[in-house]
Amino acid sequence: MLLRWVIGQCLRRTRLDQGKTLREVAEAAGVSIGHLSEVERGRKEPSSEVLAAICNALGLDLVDLLRAAQWELAKWQLPRPRLRCGDLALAA
Amino acid sequence: MLLRWVIGQCLRRTRLDQGKTLREVAEAAGVSIGHLSEVERGRKEPSSEVLAAICNALGLDLVDLLRAAQWELAKWQLPRPRLRCGDLALAA
Repeated sequence: MLLRWVIGQCLRRTRLDQGKTLREVAEAAGVSIGHLSEVERGRKEPSSEVLAAICNALGLDLVDLLRAAQWELAKWQLPRPRLRCGDLALAA
Repeated sequence: MLLRWVIGQCLRRTRLDQGKTLREVAEAAGVSIGHLSEVERGRKEPSSEVLAAICNALGLDLVDLLRAAQWELAKWQLPRPRLRCGDLALAA
C-alpha cells in the first residue's frame, strides 16, 4: 500500500461525505478537476503544497488527514474473515 | 506545516534513533545520499515508492510512519509556554 493511494482514498471519502463535487473542491483548491481526480485515485503524487490546498478546501488540517490515513490503512490491513462451508451453512 | 517536512523529520529521527548513517539507509533504500538528505530536511518531495523504500530500509511500515508523523505534528502544534517577567522571577 502506497501513501498516495491511502491519501487519495481519504480525500475522496471526505469530499463525498461533505457532498461536494470534484469541481467544487478543485476550484476551491486552485487545481484542475483532472488533477484532483487523479490524486483521489492515487494515480498522481500531489506536492505537499497542493495537498495542503486540497485539505484546506475540505476543511481538513494535516492532523485530521494523517488520522484519517491511519484509519484507512487499518481498514485495509484488517484480516478478512475467511468463510468455510460450515460457516455458510450456519449463517443460512 | 507541510506533509513533506513532517515526514522528513520522522525519517531523520528514526534513522538517528537506530544509529544509522545517511549512507547506510540510502544504500538499503536504493536512493542517493543527497536525495535522502533532501527528503529528511523536507526539501524534496519523495514519491510514494521512494518513501516506501526508505521506510523499508528503516524497518518502518506505513502505519508506523503515519503514527510518527501525527506525533511529530502534535509536538509542533503544542502551545509554547509563554513566560512573563513574574514567572522568571518566581523560577529564579
